[in-house]
Amino acid sequence: MEKGRLQSFSDGVIAIIITIMVLELKIPSSDSIASLKPLLPVFISYILSFIYIGIYWNNHHHMFYAVTRVNGKVLWANLHLLFWLSLIPFVTGWVGENHFTTIPVALYGVILLMSAVAWTILSRTLIKQHGKTSLIATAFGKDIKGTFSLIIYAAAIIVSFINPLISLGLYVVVAIMWFVPDRRIEKLI
Amino acid sequence: MEKGRLQSFSDGVIAIIITIMVLELKIPSSDSIASLKPLLPVFISYILSFIYIGIYWNNHHHMFYAVTRVNGKVLWANLHLLFWLSLIPFVTGWVGENHFTTIPVALYGVILLMSAVAWTILSRTLIKQHGKTSLIATAFGKDIKGTFSLIIYAAAIIVSFINPLISLGLYVVVAIMWFVPDRRIEKLI
Amino acid sequence: MEKGRLQSFSDGVIAIIITIMVLELKIPSSDSIASLKPLLPVFISYILSFIYIGIYWNNHHHMFYAVTRVNGKVLWANLHLLFWLSLIPFVTGWVGENHFTTIPVALYGVILLMSAVAWTILSRTLIKQHGKTSLIATAFGKDIKGTFSLIIYAAAIIVSFINPLISLGLYVVVAIMWFVPDRRIEKLI
Amino acid sequence: MEKGRLQSFSDGVIAIIITIMVLELKIPSSDSIASLKPLLPVFISYILSFIYIGIYWNNHHHMFYAVTRVNGKVLWANLHLLFWLSLIPFVTGWVGENHFTTIPVALYGVILLMSAVAWTILSRTLIKQHGKTSLIATAFGKDIKGTFSLIIYAAAIIVSFINPLISLGLYVVVAIMWFVPDRRIEKLI
Repeated sequence: MEKGRLQSFSDGVIAIIITIMVLELKIPSSDSIASLKPLLPVFISYILSFIYIGIYWNNHHHMFYAVTRVNGKVLWANLHLLFWLSLIPFVTGWVGENHFTTIPVALYGVILLMSAVAWTILSRTLIKQHGKTSLIATAFGKDIKGTFSLIIYAAAIIVSFINPLISLGLYVVVAIMWFVPDRRIEKLI
Repeated sequence: MEKGRLQSFSDGVIAIIITIMVLELKIPSSDSIASLKPLLPVFISYILSFIYIGIYWNNHHHMFYAVTRVNGKVLWANLHLLFWLSLIPFVTGWVGENHFTTIPVALYGVILLMSAVAWTILSRTLIKQHGKTSLIATAFGKDIKGTFSLIIYAAAIIVSFINPLISLGLYVVVAIMWFVPDRRIEKLI
Repeated sequence: MEKGRLQSFSDGVIAIIITIMVLELKIPSSDSIASLKPLLPVFISYILSFIYIGIYWNNHHHMFYAVTRVNGKVLWANLHLLFWLSLIPFVTGWVGENHFTTIPVALYGVILLMSAVAWTILSRTLIKQHGKTSLIATAFGKDIKGTFSLIIYAAAIIVSFINPLISLGLYVVVAIMWFVPDRRIEKLI
Repeated sequence: MEKGRLQSFSDGVIAIIITIMVLELKIPSSDSIASLKPLLPVFISYILSFIYIGIYWNNHHHMFYAVTRVNGKVLWANLHLLFWLSLIPFVTGWVGENHFTTIPVALYGVILLMSAVAWTILSRTLIKQHGKTSLIATAFGKDIKGTFSLIIYAAAIIVSFINPLISLGLYVVVAIMWFVPDRRIEKLI
């Protein structure tokens, strides 16, 4: 099957996810600078989530560049990833409105963890389809950065019950780690 | 006429439908785990509807892969399908917020039934345009799974007046039945 | 300039317009059939607007099929059309929530009229760019159906001050008139 | 890397931004003409923002027409631009609902300024990648109009503390200045 439509559908869903998050920035009733202040935590969580969604889009872009064909399993592995990403606007709003308290920060981590798990499943499914000697297998074969992220997310969820701000710091660390788009594909080409 | 734009427009609409459903997950005012509890039925209905929309997208992808050209009738048959799919976020929210009571569950079934009818009309229109010996006619000619789904939806609507949870179970059964993407096209190619 | 990106951008905007209209169908607080009753006028106006947006998308599809290149003026004429179409969800909701009273029905007509004017400007701009002997000029040269629609919209706006339901009937008449996609292009090819 | 997916993702995000702004036009509870009056400032700010987003889309269209390839830095420079553009619906609603008072008008200017800065960074990143003798470097090399816009935005932010309506006038001036799409690319081709 053609990969083009999977890419454009994913682009559409990711574009909507990244944009509807801004609807959580509720317009203040007053026109003073002070009325913006309660929006600050929502704005900070918006920036973090925007960067996360941006990272996923960038890496999705890179991953499917190395892919030649997709089957039914890939379509569902991809939808599974989009499902978890679609929950990011919800946890972004919740974490922001509650000023980064324990439960929302932990749930934010759960959604990030599940998104990362879904990403891993997607890459495994693609590698299985394309074979062990394929470009995608060589590029994603030993996904150290991916495994490392999963560990940090899991740690951050636990840490949020002690100090949610440390968890937040860990999410920022993973974001920085992934900020640089995956050069493995570019290098191999 | 070119099929590309019909595909990309459908992808856009389906991407928006699948994503705006998440807006029904209203952010709780408190930050406790308990505050997430009332969201559980909405979340369950979100998962079910996400899978349904995903199935429609997958099968739409497969169906139009086998299609070479589209005419005005196909454009409208496709819009008719998108119309019923666009109502899924509404019934998803309603069914979730009312914890799967009779009328919302029955209406959910009506929308699923109408979507399936619209899908059947679309496949018939495409077969009519491409001729009886075409790839699409061979693949969709005897749509046993489609007919079977219509019967289960109709049964589930009636059953919802006795026990709406059984209806819900029937919707899940149909979803599982369709979960595997339509291999008929892939086999024929 | 390439026409592909103009098409995909227009598809995106039209897909969002057609889908966010459904957000006007507010989820009722109760789970009874009676609670759906106040939604009926909103649902009727949703169907009408869905068909209108569908007609614009179909005809946009046909029009740009006959187009070979686009310039800066075409980009703006197209954005001007999208501007008026983007106001359709607003008037759809207003007309539905007020059960088709005079001012909302008149404003609905104004938006339809302005959309039709924008459509005419877009077709004129394309004809001017492509020349009088071009495919698009031959197809859209004498736009009798377009002119006729403008007159009916204007009449419907006036009539809404006497009886808004007659205006609504006139909008339905124009919709039926345009329902059949523009065969002029198909015939010429 | 291919530029197509960057274009279609940007089109998606820009299409959503331009369309969700209309959700700020809240449906009035009454059906009188008078009930539309408080929406007038929101509508005016909607028109201005629609034109601004339209300008960005047009120029994005032109810029990437001159681009042959994109790297990771370009992907992030582009996401950075989309981030600031995504905040336009928020400031549009705030400025409109407060009838163009100082702080909202100043913040509107800040978002326009940051969008323009992001645009400049994106064009610099593309020039750096393509080299000083490339088409894009020749077209965007001495971006006088861009620099001029930055100065006006900065001035307008300061002026808003004296008279916000003058600032609004300055935003309109910049919009008119950019209304004509960038002919430099077209001329060079």
